[in-house]
Amino acid sequence: MTSTHRFSGVLTPVIMPFDTELNIDSTRLLNQCRWLLDQGVGIAIFGTNSEANSLSVDEKIDTLDQLTEAGIDPTRLMPGTGLCALPETVRLSAHVARLGCGGALMLPPFYYKGVSDEGLFRSYSEVIERVGDERLKIYLYHIPPVSQVGISIALIERLVARYPETVVGIKDSSGDWSNTRAVHDAGLDDFRIFAGSESFLLQNMREGGAGCISATANINPAAIHELYSSWDSEQAEQKQAALNAVRECVQQFAVIPALKAIVAHFSGDPDWRRVRPPLVELDARQRDELSRRLEALGFGMSGLGASAR
Amino acid sequence: MTSTHRFSGVLTPVIMPFDTELNIDSTRLLNQCRWLLDQGVGIAIFGTNSEANSLSVDEKIDTLDQLTEAGIDPTRLMPGTGLCALPETVRLSAHVARLGCGGALMLPPFYYKGVSDEGLFRSYSEVIERVGDERLKIYLYHIPPVSQVGISIALIERLVARYPETVVGIKDSSGDWSNTRAVHDAGLDDFRIFAGSESFLLQNMREGGAGCISATANINPAAIHELYSSWDSEQAEQKQAALNAVRECVQQFAVIPALKAIVAHFSGDPDWRRVRPPLVELDARQRDELSRRLEALGFGMSGLGASAR
Repeated sequence: MTSTHRFSGVLTPVIMPFDTELNIDSTRLLNQCRWLLDQGVGIAIFGTNSEANSLSVDEKIDTLDQLTEAGIDPTRLMPGTGLCALPETVRLSAHVARLGCGGALMLPPFYYKGVSDEGLFRSYSEVIERVGDERLKIYLYHIPPVSQVGISIALIERLVARYPETVVGIKDSSGDWSNTRAVHDAGLDDFRIFAGSESFLLQNMREGGAGCISATANINPAAIHELYSSWDSEQAEQKQAALNAVRECVQQFAVIPALKAIVAHFSGDPDWRRVRPPLVELDARQRDELSRRLEALGFGMSGLGASAR
Repeated sequence: MTSTHRFSGVLTPVIMPFDTELNIDSTRLLNQCRWLLDQGVGIAIFGTNSEANSLSVDEKIDTLDQLTEAGIDPTRLMPGTGLCALPETVRLSAHVARLGCGGALMLPPFYYKGVSDEGLFRSYSEVIERVGDERLKIYLYHIPPVSQVGISIALIERLVARYPETVVGIKDSSGDWSNTRAVHDAGLDDFRIFAGSESFLLQNMREGGAGCISATANINPAAIHELYSSWDSEQAEQKQAALNAVRECVQQFAVIPALKAIVAHFSGDPDWRRVRPPLVELDARQRDELSRRLEALGFGMSGLGASAR
């Protein structure tokens, strides 16, 4: 990841530690962000796997302030800012731009279904115009399996044509490589295309993509960054296969609780397991099964124990 | 609708008027609420068709304060309070309880999909415990076609068993009568079952239901209330058929823009047409077609012009 005005590299939606009252545990979060940055991975804080949509706008703003005041480089942050309500998306995105964050990962408004490209264009357009800050750099967040509201190729093209210096990239979490390829085929100038997971990292790099933004980079950051850095080496396919094995293991479980259980396990810090409703943490049997499977892969997380507490 | 602590009757998610800056137009809203209340219809403000999920929590709180300060009886209000983020649902629900609103219509958190009943139970439970106000009366909001996260019969039973004085009813907007019947079959004590539209009003009343909460009651309140009041009369089937004809006409179009176009038409006030993105207003051709179809049904809205401005 560079710290120029357009991102490339590997980023992760950092998982969110909670205290006994289910409030954000900012000390654990800060330590985790530092550990991830040390592995070469940027922070797409408030992504889906950060439980972002279970956090209030106030909590998000306070957390960003705390992280940047504690010395986290804002240019390595790409906070999720897309919410259902226009005034709230504007408020959070304006704050992110003011802080000098490297980008904003922006969901479309996701409550109303079956909305038109025209309606979504107006949504993004209103946000951009109301924020009115050239520091705002938007990465569109296409994740129809969760949001149920997607971002079409035609909409991307229209937004980039209208706001070429603001709409600068996309995270494609469709899980559908043919969609990612279609974004590449659109041939947009310096548009940063991130795969929504490391499963498509090698394919995406070969097409000229910018990298990936992946939940599993919470637990496997160095190896994912290593493939990013050496995607054109002879060992690339082998590295991709190793990443896939870890990811497939995690995906046997509810992903967010599983990622938290893994960090709790390797840091020896069970407080990391907590999730906010409507999510539910893994039970003891599931955690054992998960540990067993990761062990069979020889998986570990180095340097985590010390920094996560 | 009575003003006892449990609702019955007809309510509507009042459509939301916006000014030229797309801010809530509180004068038009107040007049519209008064007109609806005069027709015997309660106000499920911040329902889906109020564009609730395009409004910020701050806007909702301010609007409720303005309406109640202007003399709207809070016992006839059932505001939507269910949001994605736990702290925001708690904040809005606590405000609604403090104002003495007759109820709160509560969506489950709707961003994360495929969540368990256990997770949803914890969500509602956390809200109830954190609000900690016996004035909070929750009507569960089951609308899987939009929220994509539903409320199962088992979850309803578990919530009512645990919080019998707080979880007091449901709006079933599944569009699936067999689901509404299953809620009836659960035989919960004094549990208020509202059909999600007037299409199922007669069936629901015959099963012992409480009434309906319907978008179309924005434009057809008196006739819907009339069927509610006389559901066991000989003309009931005929009245139901007349209601269905109007509803089916509206449903040929995007419903929220159509309802706004109808109010704009009959009040002679084009400002009513405005919607917030991601919605898009009807175009002139669509409005003409809608008017033509309603005219063919002999449909009108009396007394609206004077009060809507």
